[in-house]
Amino acid sequence: MDKLAVNALDWTGTSLRVLDQRILPEQSKYDEFVDAAGVAEAIASMRVRGAPAIGIAAAYGVALSVRQHYCSDGDSWIDKVKHDMQLLASSRPTAVNLFTALTAMNTVLEESIADPVTEAMAKAEQIHADDIKANYTMGELGADLMVGAKGVLTHCNTGALATGGYGTALGVVRTAYHRQPLAIYAGETRPWLQGARLTVWELQQEKIPATLIADSAAAWLMKSGQIDWVVVGADRIAANGDTANKIGTYSLAVLAKQHGVKFMVVAPLTTIDWAIASGAEITIEERNANEVLPACYQHDASVIRAWNPVFDVTPAELISAIVTEQGVVLNPALQNGVRSLKKC
Amino acid sequence: MDKLAVNALDWTGTSLRVLDQRILPEQSKYDEFVDAAGVAEAIASMRVRGAPAIGIAAAYGVALSVRQHYCSDGDSWIDKVKHDMQLLASSRPTAVNLFTALTAMNTVLEESIADPVTEAMAKAEQIHADDIKANYTMGELGADLMVGAKGVLTHCNTGALATGGYGTALGVVRTAYHRQPLAIYAGETRPWLQGARLTVWELQQEKIPATLIADSAAAWLMKSGQIDWVVVGADRIAANGDTANKIGTYSLAVLAKQHGVKFMVVAPLTTIDWAIASGAEITIEERNANEVLPACYQHDASVIRAWNPVFDVTPAELISAIVTEQGVVLNPALQNGVRSLKKC
Repeated sequence: MDKLAVNALDWTGTSLRVLDQRILPEQSKYDEFVDAAGVAEAIASMRVRGAPAIGIAAAYGVALSVRQHYCSDGDSWIDKVKHDMQLLASSRPTAVNLFTALTAMNTVLEESIADPVTEAMAKAEQIHADDIKANYTMGELGADLMVGAKGVLTHCNTGALATGGYGTALGVVRTAYHRQPLAIYAGETRPWLQGARLTVWELQQEKIPATLIADSAAAWLMKSGQIDWVVVGADRIAANGDTANKIGTYSLAVLAKQHGVKFMVVAPLTTIDWAIASGAEITIEERNANEVLPACYQHDASVIRAWNPVFDVTPAELISAIVTEQGVVLNPALQNGVRSLKKC
Repeated sequence: MDKLAVNALDWTGTSLRVLDQRILPEQSKYDEFVDAAGVAEAIASMRVRGAPAIGIAAAYGVALSVRQHYCSDGDSWIDKVKHDMQLLASSRPTAVNLFTALTAMNTVLEESIADPVTEAMAKAEQIHADDIKANYTMGELGADLMVGAKGVLTHCNTGALATGGYGTALGVVRTAYHRQPLAIYAGETRPWLQGARLTVWELQQEKIPATLIADSAAAWLMKSGQIDWVVVGADRIAANGDTANKIGTYSLAVLAKQHGVKFMVVAPLTTIDWAIASGAEITIEERNANEVLPACYQHDASVIRAWNPVFDVTPAELISAIVTEQGVVLNPALQNGVRSLKKC
C-alpha cells in the first residue's frame, strides 16, 4: 500500500497522534495522546471527525488503555479498560462506527487472555488497515463507473481525514483522477465548510487540482455541462437504498437528475442499516442554530432564528450507483435497494 | 407613506447619509457625504449596494454637486457638475440603474436653468420616492399572488437596503406577512452572505420573525412542505422572461419546480432589457475567486482554485410569475415572455 499523503491518525505504537482538523487549513498540527481519556477528548473536541476515523481512533484508545493498565494494575486491569471503553463510547454517542470498533476490541479482550497488549494493538491496527483497504477497493469500483467522465463534483469531506486513509467518495475521485483527466469540483459545504477547509486541503497535499464552489453554484455548474458525476459519501443507508448524508446532498441529487448528471454514493458496508426499510425511518438530527446564525441574533429575544439540519435523505430513485467494498448496486430503486449486498 | 424602519440612504437636504452595509449586522453606522466625490466613494466602496439604491445615491450625488458648484463657481458650474457625473458614473460601471439615474439628472439640468439647485434636489427626491412607490406597488401585486401561502423562501437581499426603501422581492414578503401568517425563510446567500447579513437584519428591525438557512438546505426545506413560494429579485430580465439574478437563484428555481413550489421574480420595469431576446445573451460576470477561496490557496502556485459566478440565469419555464410595478406576468414562458409589459 502506498504511503498516504494525509493521515488523520498516526499510530506510533505507544501513542496516537491526531491531526487537529478544527484548525485546518491554516495550521496542520498533530496532538499526541497516550491514554484512552486523551483519545476520548480528541473525539469529543472534534479534532478527529468522520465516522470511520472516529471508530479507528477509539480502537487505538482501547489499545492504549490495555497497554497502560495490563502491566501496572494487576487483576483489576480489565475493569479499568472497560471503564475507558465507556469513556470512549460516550465521546460521540451518535457515531455507529465508534460502537462497532469498541465491540470488536471487546471481543478480542475476552478471547485473548495470553497477551492482551499485543492482541489489542494488533486488532486496532487491523481495524485501521481494513478500513484503508476497503477504501481502495471502493476507489477502484467507483472509478470503474466513471470511465470517460470529464468532471466530478463532491460534497463535504469523505477523504483521508474522515476515514483510516484515502477516503470513500473522495477515494473514488482520487482513483478516477489518477486514471484519466478529470476536473474536480468541491462544494464548500456550509455551515461547517468541510469542503473548503478539508477536502481541498487534502487534494492540495497530493497536488491534485480542484475547484471550490459555493454550494448554491452547483446547479449552474451542472447546467454548464462541466460535470458528469456527483460523488458523495453516506452517514446511513436504508435497505431500500435511501441515503442519509450531509445537508445539501439531497439538493445535489435532485439537481443532478434534472441535468442528466449521474449520482454516486460511496460507503463501506457497515454504513447500511439493515434494520430500516427506507429513509422515512431516519430521524434527521438538527445541530445548533448558532452555526448558521450571526452572533447578534443568538439571544432569546431575537425574532431571527436558524434551521440547521445536519443531514438530509436522498431517495434511492435519485441514485445512479451505490458503491461499497463488497460490490456495486446500480440504480438501487430498480434493484430492491441494496439487499443484494446482504451477507447470509 | 409609512415611515420606513430601514433606510440605506438618508437625504438631509444638504448631505446624504449612507448606511455602511459592509459592517452590518454587527454595526449600524451612517457615514455622511456632502459632495459628489464622497457619494462616488460610498458607491465604489460598497457602503451602498443594490442596483436601485446605487442609482438613487448617484442622483443625490448630482444634487450635491449642483448645490456645491452653482453658487460658487460662476458660469463654469455646469462643467464641474458634468465632471462629478463622470466620477459617479465610474463608481460602479456595471449598474444599469446608475446610468438611468444620471441620465435623468442630466435631462433636468439641461431643461431647468432658472433654479438648478432646487430642480436637481427635487428630481433626486422624486427618483427616490418613485422607487419606493414602485416597491409598494410590487409588494401589493406580489402578495395578491400569495393568498393562502404558509411559507416563503427568499434569496440574497432585495429589501430596503438594496432599493430606495421597502424592497422588491422582500417588499412582497413584507406585504404578504402583514396580510397573513407567513413563515419567512432566508437563504444565507454565499459567498457574500447578503441573506445572513442584510435580509434578516432588515426583518429584525421591524420585528418580523424569520429563519435563516444554509443555501444547500433549501431543497430539504421544500421537501418538508414548509414553503409554497420562492420569491427573488432580478438583475436583468430578457424579453422572453429569462432572469439573471444572484448565484443560487437558478438552483432554487429547479428545486422549486421539482417540489411543486411556486417561483416569483419581483423587479421594477427598468430591470427588463428589451434588447435581449433570451437569457442566452446574458454574459455572466465572475467575481474574484478569493471570495470563496481560503487565504492559504490564494497564490499562483496553488492547485486549488475557486469558481465564483456572481449570477445565474433562470429560464422563463421555471418562473411562475414576474411582478413589476406595471403589472404581473403569470407563467411567462406561456405568455411570450414579458413583452405584454412593454410600453408603446
